[in-house]
Amino acid sequence: LLSSVHAELIERALGGEVRAAARLMTALESDPAAVPAIMSRIYPQAGKAHVIGITGPPGAGKSSLVDKLAAAFRSRGQTVGIVAVDPSSPFTGGAILGDRIRMQDRFSDAGVFIRSMASRGQPGGLAKASQNVVALMAACGKDVVLVETVGVGQEEIDVIRVADTTVVVMVPGLGDAVQTMKAGLLEVADVFVVNKADRDGADRLFKDLSLMVHTGMQEGKWSAPVLKTVATENQGVGEVRDRTAEHLAFVRESGEYQERRRQAATVEIDAILRERLLSAVISRVPAFDRYAQAVGRRQYDPYTAVEHILQESRLGG
Amino acid sequence: LLSSVHAELIERALGGEVRAAARLMTALESDPAAVPAIMSRIYPQAGKAHVIGITGPPGAGKSSLVDKLAAAFRSRGQTVGIVAVDPSSPFTGGAILGDRIRMQDRFSDAGVFIRSMASRGQPGGLAKASQNVVALMAACGKDVVLVETVGVGQEEIDVIRVADTTVVVMVPGLGDAVQTMKAGLLEVADVFVVNKADRDGADRLFKDLSLMVHTGMQEGKWSAPVLKTVATENQGVGEVRDRTAEHLAFVRESGEYQERRRQAATVEIDAILRERLLSAVISRVPAFDRYAQAVGRRQYDPYTAVEHILQESRLGG
Repeated sequence: LLSSVHAELIERALGGEVRAAARLMTALESDPAAVPAIMSRIYPQAGKAHVIGITGPPGAGKSSLVDKLAAAFRSRGQTVGIVAVDPSSPFTGGAILGDRIRMQDRFSDAGVFIRSMASRGQPGGLAKASQNVVALMAACGKDVVLVETVGVGQEEIDVIRVADTTVVVMVPGLGDAVQTMKAGLLEVADVFVVNKADRDGADRLFKDLSLMVHTGMQEGKWSAPVLKTVATENQGVGEVRDRTAEHLAFVRESGEYQERRRQAATVEIDAILRERLLSAVISRVPAFDRYAQAVGRRQYDPYTAVEHILQESRLGG
Repeated sequence: LLSSVHAELIERALGGEVRAAARLMTALESDPAAVPAIMSRIYPQAGKAHVIGITGPPGAGKSSLVDKLAAAFRSRGQTVGIVAVDPSSPFTGGAILGDRIRMQDRFSDAGVFIRSMASRGQPGGLAKASQNVVALMAACGKDVVLVETVGVGQEEIDVIRVADTTVVVMVPGLGDAVQTMKAGLLEVADVFVVNKADRDGADRLFKDLSLMVHTGMQEGKWSAPVLKTVATENQGVGEVRDRTAEHLAFVRESGEYQERRRQAATVEIDAILRERLLSAVISRVPAFDRYAQAVGRRQYDPYTAVEHILQESRLGG
C-alpha cells in the first residue's frame, strides 16, 4: 500500500516539483518495500517521454555528448531528464559520482533534471532501479530522458534496453577495444556517433561503421545513421538530436515501438519475478547458508543443493 | 538421471581423454536437462585444481598473457586448462571465437586444454555455464585452470568469482578508462599485472597501483603484488606464475580459501535457483506474454504484473 507521505510526494512530483521527484527517487532506491506501490501510480503516466540510451566504451566522451545533447533539446524548448548509470563493476565503482557533481554544476537550468545512480554488488538490481527512475522522470513530464551508462557490459545493456532509441558512441584510437566491440553493435545501435571526429582515424572508423550498417540494411527497417561529432566543441550535436527524433517517429509508425516496449516489459517482469521468488525461498529455508558451505566443501554440487532447497521450501516443483 | 552416454563420457573424461571431455562440455552447454546429473558426478572431484581468473579492460593483452602463463606452468610440469569466456554483450559478440582458433593453433601440446565460451542474450547463464566447464577441467585432473574474460562488466566479474586467485591486467595508455577502473580494483585483485610495461606511462601506472595496494594493506591479509610484464616478449610471466601459486598457498593457510569457496557456492546456488524458479512459474502461467504486452502498453506496471503472475502460478507467496 502507498503511504501518505509517498502519495503526497507523487502528487507534487507529477505536478512538476523537482525536489519531490528527487525524494521519490531516493525512496525508490532505498526502500524496496515501497517501490511496487509507487510504481503502480507512476508507470501508466510514463509513456510520453522519448527515452534515449547512450552507451559506448569508457573514454568515448559520452558525458560530454549527453551534456550537449541535453542543451540541444532544451534549445528546441523540450525539457530533459538525465539518468547517469554506473553498474559499479569493481572496475568502475563510484567513479561517476564525481561526474554527477560536475554535471550539476553545469546545469543550473531548471528544465534539466539529473540523477546519477550507482550500486555495488547487486547484479540485476541496478537495471530495474534505473528503469524506475526513468519512468518517474517521464511521468513528471520530461519530454526527453537521456540514459547514460559508463561502459559496455551486460548490465549496461540491460539498462539501455528500456530506451526507445539507442545511441552508440565510438571514438577513433581505442584500437583493439573498438575492433572487439564492432561485431554485435548493429543489434543495439539506432544511431552511431563517431565522437572526437577531429582525431586521426575518425574517417576510417566512420567508413567502417557506415559499411557495416549498409551491409546489414533491410527493406522497411530503420537503418542506423552514422554521425560525426566533436562533443566538447558542440559540433554535430544538433544532428544527433534530429536523427534520434526521426528514429522515434519511424518506430512509432512501423509498429516496432510497441514490440520494443513489450520486450522491455518482459525483461522488467523477469527481473522482478526472480528477486521475489528468490527471497520467498530464502525466507522459507533458514539453513540456506549451510547448503552453500556444503557446496563450498564440495560435499555435493550446486544443482543438488538447489534440489534440497526447493524441497525444503516447497516451492518451484 | 545420468544417461549411459554421459556416464561413459564422464568415465573417459575423468580418465584423461580430451575428446570425451570436449563432448561433455558441449553437453553442458547445449543440453540443460542433462547438466545437474553430470555436475553431481563431476563437482566432488573438482577441488584439486588451482583456478586462476584473468580479467582487465579490452586491449590489455590478456590473451597473450594467458598463453604465456599456460606455457610457464607447463614448463614446471603442470597441466593447464584454459577457459576463454566472452559474455557477448552486443559489443563483443563472438569476437573471441577468432582468438580461440588462433589459440588452438599455438598449442599442439596435449597438456593444455582450451575451451572458448560465448553466449548471446542469456544474462546470468554464462557465468554458470563457465563454472561448470571450469569444474570439469579440474575434475579431469588439470593442475591449473586459467579463466580469461574479454572485458570488465558485471557478468565477467561473476565469471571470475569462482577463481581461487584473480589476476587483474592493466596497461598504460588507456587513459580515462584506467582512471575509472581503479576505484574498486582492490576488492577483486589478488595479483596486479602491468602489461606492455615497455610502454610510456608504465612506471606511473605501476606506482599508482603500488600506492593503492599499500594504502589498503591489512595485517594478516594477502597484499596484492604489482608485477610488470611484456607478455608478447614473455617477460615477467614466470613471476606471475610464482606469485599466483604463492597466493593460493597463503589463502589455504589463512582459511580464506574456504570462505571464498562458500561465497562462490552461494553465487552458483542463487543463479540456479533463480532459473529453476522462473521456469517453474513460466510453465505454470501460459499467458505470461500477455502480461508483458499489457505492461508494454502501460496498462499497469511490472510489479503489478508480477503480483498477478505469482497469484496465477500459486508460487512465491
